[in-house]
Amino acid sequence: MYSFKNDYSEGAHPRIINALVESNLEQTPGYGEDSYTEKAVEILKQKIKRDDVDIHLFVGGTQTNLTAISAFLRPHEAAIAANTGHILVHETGAIEATGHKVISIDVSDGKLRPEDIKPALDAHTDEHMVKPKLVYISNSTEIGSIYTKNELEQLSKFCKENKLFLYMDGARLGSALCSEENDMELSDLGRLVDAFYIGGTKNGALIGEAMVICHDSLKEDFRFHIKQKGALLAKGRLLGIQFLELFRDDLYFDLARHANKMADLLKNEISRAGYKFLINSPSNQIFPILPDRLIEKLEENYSFYIWEKVDPDNSAIRLVTSWATKEENVLAFIKELKSVIDSEQ
Amino acid sequence: MYSFKNDYSEGAHPRIINALVESNLEQTPGYGEDSYTEKAVEILKQKIKRDDVDIHLFVGGTQTNLTAISAFLRPHEAAIAANTGHILVHETGAIEATGHKVISIDVSDGKLRPEDIKPALDAHTDEHMVKPKLVYISNSTEIGSIYTKNELEQLSKFCKENKLFLYMDGARLGSALCSEENDMELSDLGRLVDAFYIGGTKNGALIGEAMVICHDSLKEDFRFHIKQKGALLAKGRLLGIQFLELFRDDLYFDLARHANKMADLLKNEISRAGYKFLINSPSNQIFPILPDRLIEKLEENYSFYIWEKVDPDNSAIRLVTSWATKEENVLAFIKELKSVIDSEQ
Amino acid sequence: MYSFKNDYSEGAHPRIINALVESNLEQTPGYGEDSYTEKAVEILKQKIKRDDVDIHLFVGGTQTNLTAISAFLRPHEAAIAANTGHILVHETGAIEATGHKVISIDVSDGKLRPEDIKPALDAHTDEHMVKPKLVYISNSTEIGSIYTKNELEQLSKFCKENKLFLYMDGARLGSALCSEENDMELSDLGRLVDAFYIGGTKNGALIGEAMVICHDSLKEDFRFHIKQKGALLAKGRLLGIQFLELFRDDLYFDLARHANKMADLLKNEISRAGYKFLINSPSNQIFPILPDRLIEKLEENYSFYIWEKVDPDNSAIRLVTSWATKEENVLAFIKELKSVIDSEQ
Amino acid sequence: MYSFKNDYSEGAHPRIINALVESNLEQTPGYGEDSYTEKAVEILKQKIKRDDVDIHLFVGGTQTNLTAISAFLRPHEAAIAANTGHILVHETGAIEATGHKVISIDVSDGKLRPEDIKPALDAHTDEHMVKPKLVYISNSTEIGSIYTKNELEQLSKFCKENKLFLYMDGARLGSALCSEENDMELSDLGRLVDAFYIGGTKNGALIGEAMVICHDSLKEDFRFHIKQKGALLAKGRLLGIQFLELFRDDLYFDLARHANKMADLLKNEISRAGYKFLINSPSNQIFPILPDRLIEKLEENYSFYIWEKVDPDNSAIRLVTSWATKEENVLAFIKELKSVIDSEQ
Repeated sequence: MYSFKNDYSEGAHPRIINALVESNLEQTPGYGEDSYTEKAVEILKQKIKRDDVDIHLFVGGTQTNLTAISAFLRPHEAAIAANTGHILVHETGAIEATGHKVISIDVSDGKLRPEDIKPALDAHTDEHMVKPKLVYISNSTEIGSIYTKNELEQLSKFCKENKLFLYMDGARLGSALCSEENDMELSDLGRLVDAFYIGGTKNGALIGEAMVICHDSLKEDFRFHIKQKGALLAKGRLLGIQFLELFRDDLYFDLARHANKMADLLKNEISRAGYKFLINSPSNQIFPILPDRLIEKLEENYSFYIWEKVDPDNSAIRLVTSWATKEENVLAFIKELKSVIDSEQ
Repeated sequence: MYSFKNDYSEGAHPRIINALVESNLEQTPGYGEDSYTEKAVEILKQKIKRDDVDIHLFVGGTQTNLTAISAFLRPHEAAIAANTGHILVHETGAIEATGHKVISIDVSDGKLRPEDIKPALDAHTDEHMVKPKLVYISNSTEIGSIYTKNELEQLSKFCKENKLFLYMDGARLGSALCSEENDMELSDLGRLVDAFYIGGTKNGALIGEAMVICHDSLKEDFRFHIKQKGALLAKGRLLGIQFLELFRDDLYFDLARHANKMADLLKNEISRAGYKFLINSPSNQIFPILPDRLIEKLEENYSFYIWEKVDPDNSAIRLVTSWATKEENVLAFIKELKSVIDSEQ
Repeated sequence: MYSFKNDYSEGAHPRIINALVESNLEQTPGYGEDSYTEKAVEILKQKIKRDDVDIHLFVGGTQTNLTAISAFLRPHEAAIAANTGHILVHETGAIEATGHKVISIDVSDGKLRPEDIKPALDAHTDEHMVKPKLVYISNSTEIGSIYTKNELEQLSKFCKENKLFLYMDGARLGSALCSEENDMELSDLGRLVDAFYIGGTKNGALIGEAMVICHDSLKEDFRFHIKQKGALLAKGRLLGIQFLELFRDDLYFDLARHANKMADLLKNEISRAGYKFLINSPSNQIFPILPDRLIEKLEENYSFYIWEKVDPDNSAIRLVTSWATKEENVLAFIKELKSVIDSEQ
Repeated sequence: MYSFKNDYSEGAHPRIINALVESNLEQTPGYGEDSYTEKAVEILKQKIKRDDVDIHLFVGGTQTNLTAISAFLRPHEAAIAANTGHILVHETGAIEATGHKVISIDVSDGKLRPEDIKPALDAHTDEHMVKPKLVYISNSTEIGSIYTKNELEQLSKFCKENKLFLYMDGARLGSALCSEENDMELSDLGRLVDAFYIGGTKNGALIGEAMVICHDSLKEDFRFHIKQKGALLAKGRLLGIQFLELFRDDLYFDLARHANKMADLLKNEISRAGYKFLINSPSNQIFPILPDRLIEKLEENYSFYIWEKVDPDNSAIRLVTSWATKEENVLAFIKELKSVIDSEQ
């Protein structure tokens, strides 16, 4: 049984593991005040090309989102997210648990544009309603789509004009930035969003997400919030060592590029076999629409999520690739898919 | 300028004021432990025909909703409400501020039915999502519609089967129960919902809402929650005196019946003048659709909310009547409406 | 049975009731946007001698405290209060329920001085601890003591130097400002504290507290917080009418002066009878230490709180006077007290 | 520079690292539903000798405490802790941030006994105060003391009688259970407390704490709370693998025993050199009282916390040992200490 369920089925990239092994018996200060974390932060600032951002390392995505959003907002302020947004559907009301409403915007491709947000702003007119204050976007989105530089620039401009913070969930930022359709780099994010995080868990780290705070007014006392939410790791080095290894050269991007390449291979072959996709997703998640009988057969040797029923006989499935997906795994899957098709004809 | 903006434009019904005046210099214990409150509670229990409900008096609706819902739910549990629900749109995220998500259900008439709720339950499958636990309904709804006994029975049954608490916001319960289309009484609510409140503010009281907790598991320590939310009135007598006066005979229902009668009069005459309504609302809020030019003229002498644009030339407005609306106010409004129409032809 | 239990045993001063009666059938806008509230706010600003403060009317004290403090603090910030502080001991954890720790400072007289606060600041050194940010004081305090102008000036200076907001709970501010030992007036508060509230409930109003926000950075969007906490009264006029009546002349101060006078009378006579007091309280709460047998006798015709056991045979009781306490009530109590003493000798 | 600052200065015990390396490329389900976690849970249940406890793995201590306590309490309920309790002093108000007050009890040795708690219960009499509901203890405590079986039995009995949940923070449980003065084992905890966690971070794990819920009423929906607080690790295997390795034989206890042995060695030698200790701490934290001049010298080559000033010339320092402390490190420290003493005479 091989799994295309997600990009966190394995441990960490061997270089990460190796870095942990090598530093293991060294003594370091706790709580992220070690030299590994310092170096990792320094290198990240170079990649973002801004020395004035604040960077904090977290263990996981939900933790990062809830700590940041609750730190950034006053009690009466709300976040705005696409209806597919992770904070809306898959974080057990973590943001609401910190006291803030999340306003859901219906979109079809997981992305928010100014014209999607405008009506929500217009509908919130006075103190009988929450005050929308932060726009939450994901890149790549929960359904694999990515933002173009132009889209992000327009969104950024709109947010500034409307005094909204723009926050990007980068759980799969590596895959987004290494997509063939991408035209941005880390330094664009530093310029266009107020805060974002660079996801490690889903791109080769054992665990870890790097929060980057760009907007000055969001920086103050942030470590208090990290600690209060239970997110200040005693052995902060564990995160520092990993991000240092991921970014001291281009390992982070190499891994994401590989994941995308494997997804493209799957996409091309499935397309060639005559199937369509639920959405154009130029990243490491793809959503082919397959006959239910075919899906059933594939499930004998592969695990993946059935995303949604498309019509009585067909469903979209989600296939996720990662740094750990081998070309031979992909080829075997395609071979199986084709053999099932052939046997049915 | 006469206002049809809402049902809380005046002070209180003179009998209420009188009761306050007469008891004014009497000394009573604080925090709702006075004899007026005791008697009011006793009488309410008789009207509900259940001796085993717990009754607590509050000052206002948002306060009542947030205290009750946060007391009833555990941190991971969520409320479900129609998209027009007051807690969703007009309470500044008060429920979320206590940590709970409110799941919005799109409906056209302000009412929830089992088939509206079912998909939301089905979509919440595991611990990555909140657990829907309480269904919030309003009667009458925020757009004037009311529940029939049959509808409430089905909803109640559905909630029991799915281990959901059923909570009714009765800000305008008087108007609902005195509607010509109503077939329920207070005792039906005591049987069919787990908790509800009887709105006083919008039906003749100076201020005040009476919370009725029917389900045993929701009763424990409720006064702690009232106090913690800042809702335990030092001079609790102020609420007790009012509810005693409203319910020692049928004043509460007489006032609601009058408000409905005034709304019906408005409705019939507007209908006769050839206009339609946004929704069938057999209570004290009506939503006629009028030409914008006509609305503009009416606004010279009357205040009311413009509810929504219906087409380029017409809008729905909201007219609210109350215990304080006099027949002469209604007739004058109708006369003005007709004269504007005549002058335009 | 006559009660000296508190200063909210009766309804409202007749002039307040009268003002409510007279305005009763007038239509006004809701939510504090009526002309009574506007006028009340204007007059209060004149009394405070600052046109740039923001004033918001609330129903009760706990509600006011929790709304203000949660609006003023960021999630990691804490309030500091004397161990007798109302928010610490008698509000069911209302502040903590909004997410904020309240740091308790042991003092003997209910008052905070810079040297009491300093150690708490010194003990909170980094992000593993909350950040003290607001100093909560009461005037008069929960045990009847009051601040002198000099004390408040020093505290104000200390708070400014340490970037702490200074917040005054004025539930019994009237009694404090009308104490014979007082040397401040409302305008001093406007100058020395960042926010405070003027208590109405305990000084002749039916209900009501007037929140005054002096520090600019605390003003923004405050009405959102009021609404979110369920504290925005639909019939806001109810509060406006009362504060207008209390402050259009000096009724508020006249009532407080009367309450103090009654307390002084009690104090002098009890003192003359040979008893001591738990604390010097030059306001409308006094704490005589009486023999338990005497207390028992007095309880036959009077109700009051037994504050604390002082030694095996004596306890301190709390006697509270108000605008409604008549001299004859006080004289009768003293007569009874003396007759019990005489009968025992 | 060698550090005795804490027990999390190094990475993980080599066997833990090795287990991570060996399993690294294996695919497993996420969120703690992998076979490693399952096996770890099974083995822990055997050690606790109860098959009916629920076990959940967390990343860190503050996260564990806040998730558990907020899941266990209703909004009006409070925790009780010793004044040294970690949740009171070193978690940035994390518990308050979830809405709950923590009642502080002054004790001198970090431990709570029924007679310490009783006055707090007596002082909380009605709904104007929070309702104490959970007793938080640490074992070993934050100052190195440990509970005896008899003490815990009495505390457990007291809690049951007063309907209080008893919760044990076991960040350093290994050291407590392996202390020479200890007379309990894991199975006693399963019998005597309602929930506790077994700390991994401070005893050889890279990261990780194992929460054990014994009381049935605390178990329901616990995974929802974990996810909502951002504590549900995508790569849950990371925790499972570690706890499996720590408990598949007695590694966990071997490591704790070693840490204690190193602390005992330090203690004996410092004692022999003529110094006293702030507190009797039979675990891996010791608090010798040393002359300030000696401390200054030691700081040249060793890092440790200066705990508190004892008198003008002496301070207590904290020395912490761990699985990673080598006998040679201890001996070198003692040698240095003695040489400083000698040089001063």
